[in-house]
This record gives sequence, C-alpha cells and structure tokens, in this order.
Amino acid sequence: MDANEFRTAAKAAIDEIADYHENVVNKNPVATVQPGYLRPLLPASAPLDPEPFEAIRADIQDKIMPGITHWSSPGFMAFFPCSSSYPAAIAEMYSNAFNGAHFNWICSPAVTELETIVLDWLAQALGLPECYTSGGSTHGGGVLHGTASEAILTVMVAARDKYVAAKTSHLPEGSEEKEEETWRLRGKLVALGSAGTHSSTQKAAQVLGVRFATVTVYEEDGFALTGAHLHETLRELTAQGLEPFYLTTTLGTTDVCAVDDFASIAATLAAHNSKNSHGAEVFVHVDAAYAGSALMLPEHQHLTKSFTHFHSFNVNPHKWMLTTFDCSAVFVRSRADLITALSIKPAYLRNEFSDSELVTDYRDWQIPLGRRFRSLKLWFVLRSHGISGLRAHFQQGIARAELLEAKLRTRPDLMTVFTAARFGLVTLRIVGANEDDINKKTAQVYEAVNADGHFYLTSTVVGKDKKFAIRACTSTRAMTDEHIQLLFAIFVREAEKVCH
Amino acid sequence: MDANEFRTAAKAAIDEIADYHENVVNKNPVATVQPGYLRPLLPASAPLDPEPFEAIRADIQDKIMPGITHWSSPGFMAFFPCSSSYPAAIAEMYSNAFNGAHFNWICSPAVTELETIVLDWLAQALGLPECYTSGGSTHGGGVLHGTASEAILTVMVAARDKYVAAKTSHLPEGSEEKEEETWRLRGKLVALGSAGTHSSTQKAAQVLGVRFATVTVYEEDGFALTGAHLHETLRELTAQGLEPFYLTTTLGTTDVCAVDDFASIAATLAAHNSKNSHGAEVFVHVDAAYAGSALMLPEHQHLTKSFTHFHSFNVNPHKWMLTTFDCSAVFVRSRADLITALSIKPAYLRNEFSDSELVTDYRDWQIPLGRRFRSLKLWFVLRSHGISGLRAHFQQGIARAELLEAKLRTRPDLMTVFTAARFGLVTLRIVGANEDDINKKTAQVYEAVNADGHFYLTSTVVGKDKKFAIRACTSTRAMTDEHIQLLFAIFVREAEKVCH
Repeated sequence: MDANEFRTAAKAAIDEIADYHENVVNKNPVATVQPGYLRPLLPASAPLDPEPFEAIRADIQDKIMPGITHWSSPGFMAFFPCSSSYPAAIAEMYSNAFNGAHFNWICSPAVTELETIVLDWLAQALGLPECYTSGGSTHGGGVLHGTASEAILTVMVAARDKYVAAKTSHLPEGSEEKEEETWRLRGKLVALGSAGTHSSTQKAAQVLGVRFATVTVYEEDGFALTGAHLHETLRELTAQGLEPFYLTTTLGTTDVCAVDDFASIAATLAAHNSKNSHGAEVFVHVDAAYAGSALMLPEHQHLTKSFTHFHSFNVNPHKWMLTTFDCSAVFVRSRADLITALSIKPAYLRNEFSDSELVTDYRDWQIPLGRRFRSLKLWFVLRSHGISGLRAHFQQGIARAELLEAKLRTRPDLMTVFTAARFGLVTLRIVGANEDDINKKTAQVYEAVNADGHFYLTSTVVGKDKKFAIRACTSTRAMTDEHIQLLFAIFVREAEKVCH
Repeated sequence: MDANEFRTAAKAAIDEIADYHENVVNKNPVATVQPGYLRPLLPASAPLDPEPFEAIRADIQDKIMPGITHWSSPGFMAFFPCSSSYPAAIAEMYSNAFNGAHFNWICSPAVTELETIVLDWLAQALGLPECYTSGGSTHGGGVLHGTASEAILTVMVAARDKYVAAKTSHLPEGSEEKEEETWRLRGKLVALGSAGTHSSTQKAAQVLGVRFATVTVYEEDGFALTGAHLHETLRELTAQGLEPFYLTTTLGTTDVCAVDDFASIAATLAAHNSKNSHGAEVFVHVDAAYAGSALMLPEHQHLTKSFTHFHSFNVNPHKWMLTTFDCSAVFVRSRADLITALSIKPAYLRNEFSDSELVTDYRDWQIPLGRRFRSLKLWFVLRSHGISGLRAHFQQGIARAELLEAKLRTRPDLMTVFTAARFGLVTLRIVGANEDDINKKTAQVYEAVNADGHFYLTSTVVGKDKKFAIRACTSTRAMTDEHIQLLFAIFVREAEKVCH
C-alpha cells in the first residue's frame, strides 16, 4: 500500500468508523456469537501473497463486527466504562504515525515532555496536592502506564524495596547480615487491600511473590475501608511476625464504588509507622482508576486532602475521561521511590541527556522499556472538551445514577437500593423472604435483564454475608435518561416475574 | 466534536500523516530541540473551555513535530527499528473504534479469537515447533503483550512458581514445612542471562526480587551464549547453594545480534535438570524480539529446532515486522504454566463462558487485566504484505547490512568489521595502535557521525575487555542502498580525520 492508496483506504475507514459511532447507540451491547465462531471463517494460515485491502476491510464488517461487544453502546452498564471520543481517536492516529519505542528523552523529546506537562495539567485539574506534580516540593510527578494493574505492580515494587531498605538501613552495606535480613524480611512482607480493592492488587502480590491480606469491610461503613478495621488487621499481622509494607486504598471500589475513609486510614498508619523500626513505613497507593475522574468536579476535591500522607495515586482516563484505552495516569509523591526500584542503565541506553539528568527517563518509572506516545490523546481530550466539557460529562453520568436510584425507590415492593448512587454507580437487590431468597431472586433478575439484550450489567457479591447485588453503571457517554427509563421498566418487568 | 466534524478533521489528519510518511525519507532522524523546549510553548494548565480542533492540530506541526525523533527516517540506524506500515495504521484506527478493556472473551469475542488464530498463523510462518500453537500437543499457544519486557517478566513469574512448586512437591500441602521451604527457596532463586541478554531480564529479576546472574560470552564464540559457559555458571551457583530457575537465551542480541548456541544450551540444561530434585527444571525463554522476524525466511528456520526443549519464545512484530508499536508476540509450550501463576478470579470477572473453559481468558496469560485489540494490526500486516512481501522486506534489511560490511572491508586502513552482518546489523571499530586507542578513535567517529545528523547510530561495549563498537542497523524500511553509500562515505570521512 503506497501513500495514495493509504489516503483512500484510510479515509474510507474514517467514514466506516464514524458510521459505527453514529449507529452504536442502536446496537445491543453484547456480541451474541458462540465460542469458536471465528476460526471456521478464516484460513488456516497467513497468505503467501498480498491480499487486496478491500478484502481485508470487508472482513471487518463480515467477520469481526459480529464478535464485537460494544463498550460505547448506551446499554453497556457492566464493569466500568471504557470511554473514548473523536479527538482521542485522531490523537491516536498521530501517535501511531510518530511510531517508535520512545524509551528515553532523545528517542522523541516531545513524548517525554508532553507527558510531564499534561500530567501536571491533570494533577491540577483533579485537585491533587502539589506534591504529585513534577515541580512539587517532594520531587514527585506523573507518568502514563497502560492500566491500573501495571500501576499497582509498579508502585508495589517501589514499596517493597523502600520498606526493606529502611528496615535494613542500620546494617553495614554489603554485609552478610544485611543480605540475610533482606531475604528474611522479603519472606515476611504482606501487601494489604480491602475486600473492595480491585483484584489487581492481589495479582501484583502474586506476581511479586509476597503475601496478600484483605481487610474486612462492612455494610454499615458503606463497604469502605476504615482506619479502625485496618488497625485490627495490622495488629494481627504484626503479632504473627509479618511485615505489612503496602496498602491499596480505593476511591470508588469496583463492586459498589465505595470511597475509603482516607482520614482515618492516614491516622491509623501514622500511629503504626511511628512504632516501626528504622523509619520503615507502609506505602499507600490510592486506586482511583474509575472514580478519580470525578475529582475534576470541585465538590469532590475535598477527598484528596489526605493524599499528602499517601505515596501514589492513579486514575485511568480510559475509563471515564473519554480517552481511548489504554491510559492510566500514575502520580507519585517522590519519583525517587520508583527510580530507585526500577532503574538499570546498560551502555546502549546511555546518552548525554540522560546522564546529565536534565531529562526524565520514564522507562525508570515503569516496567516496560518501550513506551507509546500516550500523552497526545490525553492532551487532545483536555483541550477539545475543556475542563468544563469534561465536568459536564461526569455530572451527567452521576445524575443518571441518581435518577435510576430515585426510580428504584418508587418500587420498594420489588427492589431495594443496596448502595446509593455514587459516581454513576448504583447497586440493587430484589426483595425476598430472607437473604437466600433475596440472593436467588436478584440473580434471576440479573440473568433475565442480561438475556433481554438491551443492557449489559455485571453483578457483585459483597460483605461478610456474601450479598449478591446487581451493578448498574450509568456513565457511558451515549446513555440518556430514556435508557434509564427503559432499564427501570425491564427491572420492574423481570422483578414482577420472580416476585409474584 | 460530532461525527461530521470528525470525518473532516480525521481525513485532514490522514492527509497530514501521509504527507509526513512521504517526507520522512528526507528528514534527519534525531530531534534537535534542547531539554525543556516544550514547557514554555504550552499554557500552565488545561483550558477551562473547549479549544477548536484547528488550534490543536496546528500545534502538532508547530510544537510537537520539532520534538519528534523520526524512527521511520532511513537514517535511523540506532537500537533496533520500530517499523510500521499503512495497513497497520488503518488497523489501529479500527482497534481504537472498538475501544474496550477486552479482558475476557465476552468483553469482545473477536479480540480473543482473532488473537489465537493470528498467533497460530505467526507461529507457523516462523517455523516454530507445533508445541507453540494453540492446538499443539503440549497445550501451548500465543498471546500478544506490549513489549518484550512484559513478556520476560511474565514468563519469569511462571518459571518461579513452577520451579518452587516442583521443589516443594514432596511436602504436604498447607504444612508449615512446605511454607518454610517455599520462602527459603525464594530467597535462593537466580535468574540467568548472558552478557548479551537484553536488560529487560535483569529488570524483571529486580522487579521480582530474585537474584540475577550473567553468563560470560566470548568474542571467539561471536558473543553467543554456549552450553559450556552456561555449565560453568550453573556449577558455581549451585555450589553456593543457589537455585538457578530461569534462563533468557537470545536469538539476535541487542549489542551484536548474536544467536545463542541453542543446541548446546539444551544439552547442558538436560544434564543439569536430571540432577535436580523432584523434577524441577530451569525454565528457558527465547528472546527473539528483533531477529525473530527473520525466521519467516526458510533458510533460518533450522534455528528453531531446539525450541522444543525450551518453554517460551517472543518476537516483537513492532520491531521488524511492520506492525505499529506496541506488539510483542509471546508463545508458550504450556499455557498452564502462565495460568497457574497468573490467574485470579474474583466474582465480577466470572461469566458462564469463562467458567466453562470453552474460551481463552488472556488476562490469565499476562500482568495487566485490560487488553487492546492488538491482533488486528498483525492480521492486517500479514494479509496486506503476505508472507512473501514480509520475506522480501527482511531480505532487503539483511542484504543492506551485507553491503555495508563489504564496503567497510574495502578500507582496512581505517576500520574493521567487528561483528559480521547478521540479520541487518553490522558492528565496526576504527583502527588504532592498541585497544585503548581503538576504543577512543571509535568513540570519536561515533560521536562525529551522529553529530553530522544524517544518521542516528548507537554504540555498544562488549566482552570481557569492554570493546567499544559502533552498531549500524540497516533494517529500517525506507533505507536504500544509496543511504548505505552515504553512511560509508561519512564513516570514511570521519575515520580519516581521527586516523590521519
């Protein structure tokens, strides 16, 4: 394909993509193909000779499209959304044109520098404390990872090395004693999360080969992690000779969008750390992958007040902030924490700019070496929508969940609001004779609503007594109040079937 | 931006991108901006109100372009290339349109199924043993990661858990003895690479908190890792009570494109493993990130013969295979190795298809949860170019290095070929009175050629006696024989300056 063929083919693709976005509002969200649908439609091996582009393009419609689940369909209310926007799509086109591995400054200075600037913009827009900006007093700053899983693994590595270094800081460098104590400690480390913490924290602990402990959360606390319950867990673990070194605390849990009680957590940890030897402290990461976007609304920025006591924070603009997947913004209070744990510098990665420390080498802030030009899409999104446009988008998602909650409350004979609308998520249960009956009926309605096809919902099981609840996330951009009306009508229809 | 504005703006971007690709052949590769160039050009914070798209687009040309290093310029001969092609660029547009986190089958069946099929195509095209295909006898298969760093970290986690599980398999499940032995072993594990192994293996060991040991390689072996030298290192480590559990072996090292001696490595490890207790064995990963693409040429496929003795393999189509960054194809002989180490399954990630094991959940084959639709670009590339077109592309890169080598050999008064052309990489040194003088003069020429600006080269320092050599990688797609002529002329000009 030469440049002129590309102009023609790519413009045809643009039209097809615009058509797709215009029509996705009318599509049911979930693909209905059966497992294994695609293999019989494709040859058993790659072609020896080039195929015409028209044949490939036709296969997008005929073979790929039936197997696509439409995350931008207004009926997609499962998990958390993956949102995008036209400016983000165009930014990705430029990013791909400037294709490269961009692992240090000289590999494309614009890639490094735009990332630093745009992440400072974002930190400011979210009301994060100044310590999370590149020019802040604690030498922190932001970096773009792909996903929250990578963010959490990365900060957990930094946390581990920082904790072990502190606990062994009194032993002579290079001594056998220090070596032994380092390995002994590594076998005792425990990463912590709450029962509402996203599974990526447990997975990161599994990857690093450290223990993982869950702090119980309670319905009366709205399933938020509190300092009091954290204190109990810390006490139990230290009594067993274990070393809690890391905590993920969450702003908007996956199950019910709970917001942990940051102030009491900070107080509990201050007391715990003061008793720890050699200044070792529990590293605290705030996972705000989804709901962090809503910090752009001034009425929520009070939530960031305690973050000066914590160590890192992430929000995924690919979730609610209209920025194409993948894009996870990670902020640290001290970039040295990351660089100490992750930097290695072989000869072929050295250059005068990196050596002089005039520039940021983001490869030392992450696990992969190579990097995409991800900041371009976030820059396009912030500028094209403006902070005001993004605020309006977040407010709409939040208001729709409140509307759904209000509707659910009009039928207490059929359903109960399990957790109230927060950041565009509401959870509900169907009424029943007892907990088992409620769980059973709720599961039946859940299956029926998904089988109907207009909406795609996910469920959750929370709390000590394992309550089953239906999640409805209302922050997909294409959703309107009419979709909320329709969803409510389907809930009523299906609840009536199982209740009467 | 609505759909019609998108059609207009995106098509204008397509023209701009096509213009860029047509003109990049005339651009010097490296950006000449100074550190910090961008911040004064941009506002201190994101705009409150939306900006018109034309203003954003203009900034691409005015503010971003000067800070771009052009990896597709024919003068880019540094590192290894990051190649792309028009079909890959169009595929990325569709992939972004089908935006989603795609972490399991139902999140978009096409994303999972196309990946399995295309990776089977690729395994076949590269001549990998059938055990690396999804239908193979050992239940292996392929997955797309972002980069080789992620691939190596992921297989190292699998290797660690497999090794420790084997070594503790005789101890009762859940016993204190098993727990103690597990932690003891973890403190003794050593990951291995050669001195030519890419730094990502050392970084993965650092991330996992396991020891890393380097096997020395020698100039007389072409800097390839051999079974004999691996044997020495294994013996030393086991004598210290350490537990070698993992080895990265390389097909095309970063420094000189050495190909490790797979057959002797396999023989050494067979002997070593047979003496290990409880069936524990060293897990072997083949890193073919760059040169693996050349396995598409039948004359190189004999290199894969020993891979039946190894455990995993990766090649990065984003390097030489005209597929936009990022795209690292990872193949394993047993997918159970990955799933055992990486799977976790919370309630909100369960669904009937995953539970029935009818489908592949690639999230259990990798560290991140969410995934991009990366197979689309590889599918477009394989079909648009055909295997024959890709072979021609690889042959051209290989032939140009051979041409450069031939030219270098015409001036033995000025320069020596340090390592012969292999897979599009040749390394050279300038002649001198002794090793110090050679290093000094080679470094001077290296700096001068880069300062000239037509070409961007990187250097390396290899072997026990730390020889400095200039790398010239000739596999960038836009390069022609004329560029080789020009590069040679510049080498001669600069070498004459330092030699006479």
